[in-house]
Amino acid sequence: MGHRSIVTLTTDFGLSDHFVGTIKGVILEINPDAEIIDISHSVQAFDVLDGALAIAQAYSYFPASTVHLVVVDPGVGTARRPIILSTERHHFVAPDNGVLSLIYGREERAHVRHVSAQHYFLQPISNTFHGRDIFAPVAAYLSKGVDSEKFGEEITDFVRFNAPKPKPVDQQTLKGVVLKADRFGNLITNITPQDAPMLFGDNPSPFKIVIGKHEITELKTSYAEGEPGEIFAILNSMGYLEIAANRAPAAQIVGTAKGTEVSILLNGAAAAGNGQ
Amino acid sequence: MGHRSIVTLTTDFGLSDHFVGTIKGVILEINPDAEIIDISHSVQAFDVLDGALAIAQAYSYFPASTVHLVVVDPGVGTARRPIILSTERHHFVAPDNGVLSLIYGREERAHVRHVSAQHYFLQPISNTFHGRDIFAPVAAYLSKGVDSEKFGEEITDFVRFNAPKPKPVDQQTLKGVVLKADRFGNLITNITPQDAPMLFGDNPSPFKIVIGKHEITELKTSYAEGEPGEIFAILNSMGYLEIAANRAPAAQIVGTAKGTEVSILLNGAAAAGNGQ
Amino acid sequence: MGHRSIVTLTTDFGLSDHFVGTIKGVILEINPDAEIIDISHSVQAFDVLDGALAIAQAYSYFPASTVHLVVVDPGVGTARRPIILSTERHHFVAPDNGVLSLIYGREERAHVRHVSAQHYFLQPISNTFHGRDIFAPVAAYLSKGVDSEKFGEEITDFVRFNAPKPKPVDQQTLKGVVLKADRFGNLITNITPQDAPMLFGDNPSPFKIVIGKHEITELKTSYAEGEPGEIFAILNSMGYLEIAANRAPAAQIVGTAKGTEVSILLNGAAAAGNGQ
Repeated sequence: MGHRSIVTLTTDFGLSDHFVGTIKGVILEINPDAEIIDISHSVQAFDVLDGALAIAQAYSYFPASTVHLVVVDPGVGTARRPIILSTERHHFVAPDNGVLSLIYGREERAHVRHVSAQHYFLQPISNTFHGRDIFAPVAAYLSKGVDSEKFGEEITDFVRFNAPKPKPVDQQTLKGVVLKADRFGNLITNITPQDAPMLFGDNPSPFKIVIGKHEITELKTSYAEGEPGEIFAILNSMGYLEIAANRAPAAQIVGTAKGTEVSILLNGAAAAGNGQ
Repeated sequence: MGHRSIVTLTTDFGLSDHFVGTIKGVILEINPDAEIIDISHSVQAFDVLDGALAIAQAYSYFPASTVHLVVVDPGVGTARRPIILSTERHHFVAPDNGVLSLIYGREERAHVRHVSAQHYFLQPISNTFHGRDIFAPVAAYLSKGVDSEKFGEEITDFVRFNAPKPKPVDQQTLKGVVLKADRFGNLITNITPQDAPMLFGDNPSPFKIVIGKHEITELKTSYAEGEPGEIFAILNSMGYLEIAANRAPAAQIVGTAKGTEVSILLNGAAAAGNGQ
Repeated sequence: MGHRSIVTLTTDFGLSDHFVGTIKGVILEINPDAEIIDISHSVQAFDVLDGALAIAQAYSYFPASTVHLVVVDPGVGTARRPIILSTERHHFVAPDNGVLSLIYGREERAHVRHVSAQHYFLQPISNTFHGRDIFAPVAAYLSKGVDSEKFGEEITDFVRFNAPKPKPVDQQTLKGVVLKADRFGNLITNITPQDAPMLFGDNPSPFKIVIGKHEITELKTSYAEGEPGEIFAILNSMGYLEIAANRAPAAQIVGTAKGTEVSILLNGAAAAGNGQ
């Protein structure tokens, strides 16, 4: 026998109910050799974009043949399809609601199938817990080596949204947004070095980052460089510009969270569009 | 060697201390091949009924020979007994305080033993953490294949409570209760289709479900059918009537939680007993 | 093949982001046979002492050859060193910031190495997530059997702090402190039977424990002995004196938490130093 097959879980089920335990039982009943790894069960409830961010940050670090189960499924029980996304290295099992959107963009060879082979499902199928009745069994059979073709036809009209991209307002101004605040209160923006090369080059232009009432004029290279109470910017481990503080929650200090606008102003441009 | 032996954990220990990690260490030191699966560690602190609900919803999905460790144990250090419940497919290790009550009713062949064989315990035995010193080692030895008879004598006077059942007030009125609010704010009642067949048949009677100040007159078949802000009823994946909303927490909208009364009124009966 | 190699995780990463999932992926990519066990990811953010307490309570229960990954790392990206601590039974991988301080004191043969062999790291190395880029790969290679000598030179000038010890004020008075409140609201002090033998002997002296406005004159031997609402003291499973209540959170009742002073007064001594 080769290595154990890995099944990861990313859901908005939380940890206070029986949901996650039930899913693990279903997987192990079908494939007792599955190695189940929790990525997160604290995706914001019903928040497909938040789920898309969580799996997109973690999946690529797992070994080849890993099966990623991603269940953020406000449309459970409706006609939205269950799908399998197969890339060169991994499989993903999810509802067809866009929760895999950030994967499609990163993987060249991606095939998506509409899962329709009901004999792989748990019977009877409830209308409220397809994580248990559809997604977990499909992930388990995939992890056991059942070919993805067995589950249904390939489709191309799957749901896919674009993550919010930063927008140039003029030559001197770029507007982005806070994607989320992490556990430490760091504010993760959607701005990458590709979006703002003038900040990240060897000889960066003078700039101002405006978030709420705060203005930031310096990039730090580690959290510990920040003075107590200081808000600064840093390129984080996900490749995004992050608004942070040293050993303190920037989200709380700045008084903002997910969805807040972040502007980068070059060469003394005045902040536009938010009245400041 | 056959398949790995699975040990599940259901406790009220939370995840912020060393308790769960310690228990896992104890199990693995005794049986390094044990596959430890968390069901939940967020059972309400000291709440035996909440623990009983968690394990009852999840256990049956696990493979044969799974050992379920269930520790919600406000009586730790007193004379309450440690027990093993053995059913046709599984073992359960728990304090004898009723936390397995909802299993007894579902399993025909159930044997309960008083665990008294102290040589399986961790020494010295503390008075405050039998999860570590008694329950984890017993579960580990069971998972290793030690026969349940080795741990102590069979008993029949184990603690068993009945889950709260809905009560008919008159021909037209049934009163139930909210068992818990789940992570999504769905209010899970104790009412099943067997309790209220008139709601779930092919040709259901006109009815009114009263909870707090809300009246519900329709059953939906999926969460997504609800209008924004609408409170409705749905048969959930556990087989219970649930009060829910679409992508929103019904518990917060209705302003109620665990223990709230839920009435089903048929054919225009007036709500009785709660002054409405 | 022998038993699976165990890697435990103790971090302040929380469970709501992708951090923990990413670390697990990195470990499994390097060592697909690693058995990853969560001790806790809810160490207080940036709190090295809290992390030190968590790992110190749990590590010794794990089997020989376990690798413990401990990442509470406010200095990530600075010159603080990554280290491996090897004891007779275990390896620990952590930043050199004192988070292993409580292990050094308990293990006779302990060797500490400065991890400098960059070919074991994930490239490129970020400045903000060494858990992913340095600590997880090192733990994974250790769990695969790579000799600790391969990772770098032994050092003796590693960071080590002493846990706060209780102090005798005079012959009759001992002052300790609350180390933390646990999930149940129990207040764990830093006072052990060795510090206060007069409380724990066969014929204990009359004593008074003062915490906030509460005075406690009795040690209980189990939580369940407490009357409703009563605050009492108990020797807990970690070997510390604990301020507790029966099925209720003492922390909330006493209105105190981490850092609060706790005094033990013998033979009618008056509480000193806190004005009471």
